[in-house]
Amino acid sequence: MQSHRKELWFETPTRRAFVNITPEVEETVRESGVTEGLVLVNAMHITASVFINDDEPGLHHDFEVFLEDLAPHEPLSRYHHNRTGEDNGDAHVKRQLFGREVVVAITGGRLDFGPWEQIFYGEFDGRRRKRVLVKVIGE
Amino acid sequence: MQSHRKELWFETPTRRAFVNITPEVEETVRESGVTEGLVLVNAMHITASVFINDDEPGLHHDFEVFLEDLAPHEPLSRYHHNRTGEDNGDAHVKRQLFGREVVVAITGGRLDFGPWEQIFYGEFDGRRRKRVLVKVIGE
Amino acid sequence: MQSHRKELWFETPTRRAFVNITPEVEETVRESGVTEGLVLVNAMHITASVFINDDEPGLHHDFEVFLEDLAPHEPLSRYHHNRTGEDNGDAHVKRQLFGREVVVAITGGRLDFGPWEQIFYGEFDGRRRKRVLVKVIGE
Repeated sequence: MQSHRKELWFETPTRRAFVNITPEVEETVRESGVTEGLVLVNAMHITASVFINDDEPGLHHDFEVFLEDLAPHEPLSRYHHNRTGEDNGDAHVKRQLFGREVVVAITGGRLDFGPWEQIFYGEFDGRRRKRVLVKVIGE
Repeated sequence: MQSHRKELWFETPTRRAFVNITPEVEETVRESGVTEGLVLVNAMHITASVFINDDEPGLHHDFEVFLEDLAPHEPLSRYHHNRTGEDNGDAHVKRQLFGREVVVAITGGRLDFGPWEQIFYGEFDGRRRKRVLVKVIGE
Repeated sequence: MQSHRKELWFETPTRRAFVNITPEVEETVRESGVTEGLVLVNAMHITASVFINDDEPGLHHDFEVFLEDLAPHEPLSRYHHNRTGEDNGDAHVKRQLFGREVVVAITGGRLDFGPWEQIFYGEFDGRRRKRVLVKVIGE
């Protein structure tokens, strides 16, 4: 069994953002030399998500509206978590809704994807440096 | 390390449906010959989910009501995504709530499940041919 | 490839609870002897979750309020599932929102975590004995 590990770093200029990281994950799989296996891609921070959906700006707008409606950033007093001095209570809840990680099959050395699957980093508390872990195992 | 791959195909007659795919996944694990490992089961489309819960019709009704309440299909104008000519903006959001994939342990050649766990394909934009990927790795 | 399996048992005194199980998962990884691989941690019951977030009581309060707002326990008649004689329709929905499982990378014999990641068992229908599965694969 082989394994390979890489960190992807982000610093989004806005509080919230969706970043397509599919090319970076594909490159990491190529570097690993693994042809049959699994790749785990996870946010290493608890106010961010990794998820798979469509790379379509209208949809990303819909996601933003949906998440802000269910877990609005303000008023900050809405979240007990913000009593610690943080202002990211909403970001922790949004991350729960969109998930921490994806696991993708590797077949023939490539991400084994359907026609529209793209991997996104979902940032809910940006404007600082944060990381995603890519871990490949297989042979 | 061994690996095995299979696609399961669906064409549900209704827009939304929950289909129990546990027997097909169990059969795929048997075919693989893997006795200790992991199986990844994921929707290959971004308007469908794979998830684990109970095979009970009342619960599936509750899931349907819950998802439709949070992300109603209509009015179509609710979703910017539908400006592309699609009518499935709601289906992308529902898929985010119910998730893309499950990873299940294989122990002694079988799905290592608790007493009530069953794997479902959750269709949110059906009436056309769509796929689930089953990828087994282990030894 | 090596594999290792362990069950963690719980009986929470309250209906709902969040239990930090990071030490038990770390110990299971140590026992396995695996230095590079993946660990799957999943609820074996369909009214409980395993998820990763912050170990901060204010945040857990926020999670509880969020889940109870979206899927309230009462009135029991809200859920068709409860017509079976159960009273846990809400718990099945809450589990869908917070997820069944996490997959964590193992690097250098340790959980490959960001600075604040902690693994939680999320109980939504407690006061009885229930299980989490930890499955390690790698080498």
